Amino acid sequence: MKNHLSLKVNQKMDSFDLNSYLFSKRKQIDRAIDNIIDQTSNSSVVASAMRHSLMAEGKRIRPILCMSASRAVGGKAEDVIMVSCALEMIHTYSLIHDDLPAMDNDDLRRGKPTCHIAFDEATAILAGDALLTLAFEILSSIELNNINNAFKWLRVINIIAKAAGYKGMIEGQIKDIAAEGNRIGLTDLEEMHALKTGALIEASISTGAILGNGSVEQIEQLDIYAKNIGLAFQVIDDILNVEGDPAVMGKDVGTDQVREKSTYPSILGIEKSKEFAKNLVNNALQALDYFDNKFDPLRAIAHYIIDRKK
Amino acid sequence: MKNHLSLKVNQKMDSFDLNSYLFSKRKQIDRAIDNIIDQTSNSSVVASAMRHSLMAEGKRIRPILCMSASRAVGGKAEDVIMVSCALEMIHTYSLIHDDLPAMDNDDLRRGKPTCHIAFDEATAILAGDALLTLAFEILSSIELNNINNAFKWLRVINIIAKAAGYKGMIEGQIKDIAAEGNRIGLTDLEEMHALKTGALIEASISTGAILGNGSVEQIEQLDIYAKNIGLAFQVIDDILNVEGDPAVMGKDVGTDQVREKSTYPSILGIEKSKEFAKNLVNNALQALDYFDNKFDPLRAIAHYIIDRKK
Repeated sequence: MKNHLSLKVNQKMDSFDLNSYLFSKRKQIDRAIDNIIDQTSNSSVVASAMRHSLMAEGKRIRPILCMSASRAVGGKAEDVIMVSCALEMIHTYSLIHDDLPAMDNDDLRRGKPTCHIAFDEATAILAGDALLTLAFEILSSIELNNINNAFKWLRVINIIAKAAGYKGMIEGQIKDIAAEGNRIGLTDLEEMHALKTGALIEASISTGAILGNGSVEQIEQLDIYAKNIGLAFQVIDDILNVEGDPAVMGKDVGTDQVREKSTYPSILGIEKSKEFAKNLVNNALQALDYFDNKFDPLRAIAHYIIDRKK
Repeated sequence: MKNHLSLKVNQKMDSFDLNSYLFSKRKQIDRAIDNIIDQTSNSSVVASAMRHSLMAEGKRIRPILCMSASRAVGGKAEDVIMVSCALEMIHTYSLIHDDLPAMDNDDLRRGKPTCHIAFDEATAILAGDALLTLAFEILSSIELNNINNAFKWLRVINIIAKAAGYKGMIEGQIKDIAAEGNRIGLTDLEEMHALKTGALIEASISTGAILGNGSVEQIEQLDIYAKNIGLAFQVIDDILNVEGDPAVMGKDVGTDQVREKSTYPSILGIEKSKEFAKNLVNNALQALDYFDNKFDPLRAIAHYIIDRKK
């Protein structure tokens, strides 16, 4: 069984060109974010700080997942472009606050100075606050002219607020801080990741599926897909921190070991961690087994998550 | 004209007992906030930090204004209790972040240690983030069982997000930080206050009026009322910082002068500042002139704002 699954991950989908898909989606998202920030651009230093962190060449994985999930269930990518931007804003706010001196105290992010280095601490705190608030402003403004969809958007706002909130992302960050310097077990590590990054990835996929009018079965299977790729993403992050190429990644490696962070490689070893990530991706792919080729982008993203070098 | 207006401010409304009104509303709000936090209470330190700052005996002026505006236009106070809690959460988040070492670096708030003193800086940043996010979670969850009101709630979320956002409260805080140590003029001072505190006070009143199904005229007049009492509130704050009683206020006075902050007394002098505050309150009262006695609580609050000792 395990061999079969491992094979499945390595199998190529010839019919789908992921690189040009990701490239075009990123362009679309970058343009939409740029438009929003242009509208918001005033003389304020906070607007500059928001732009600095938002436009720092992110992978845009959350917006791409949202758009892909919507497309997979038959929705139009255009209908979820704004919620995709909102998701990226919430992700970016969390990076800005996590990088602060009182938290991870990081100077570099994606090869650029972090927000509090490029500006100052007060501005970075406020830019994060502003991005979080702007996400909800965007989410609540989309259907202000269309009374029929209001209920669906209220549901979307609720899912995203819960994922970002004190029982989601924020609790994950608390657990991450608490774990620093303390050895934790696999269960705690998994729970921390499920909250810190998993929750918003799941919300990205489920809001895309809801807005694309997916069926209950599609939404349920996508949820399994989301949980598995969310965790796989973190396991690979941990592995790249051990054996990634700093030049390709644009950041230092080996930092987890220096900080004595509990990671998958530190608990399971490198080989078992890779096996674990493969199994997670296989679970994700299996969840989509009965769906048609509109789900190919999501399948390809699952492959990408395990194959990525940065 | 000015004498007539000044008289109006001093005139008592015998029919309305403001103190017991404020007391009972505060009880109602405290109970509702307590319930929300109880539901949220897990072992997390962030939940404790949220509770610490939320339950720090605030005046609850924003929730009371929201409930009073809803009642005034014929709505039920119960219908806006949750949005009232959300407004207080946003207000509290802004206090937690403003108090941080990178911003105002305050150790005491309402006579208690500020959040980052009682806990630590990372927890205070996250508790603020959590309160802001929880506000939107609450706002989006209220009508998840009632499809008919979804559109109205989307509008309410949008108004609150804008007021709290980078063109509202956050821009106000940026202007406040920029003004420290720099003498600014009356126009800049007024703009700073309109953003930093005015925007959320206006949102409290307009969302109350909208949810209470107020008429367009009522909502417009309440907006004038809100702008005027919002600014009056700040002018009186400045005056209390000069001649208030520290024992009554639970905080030091004279701090604005030490910090060389531009305030109404520093620009206009004490007497002209009092005159200005009176005029603002009179404008607020005039905006309600044609409305019935359901607006008495709002009238009494306008009086309270100018008469308060803390």
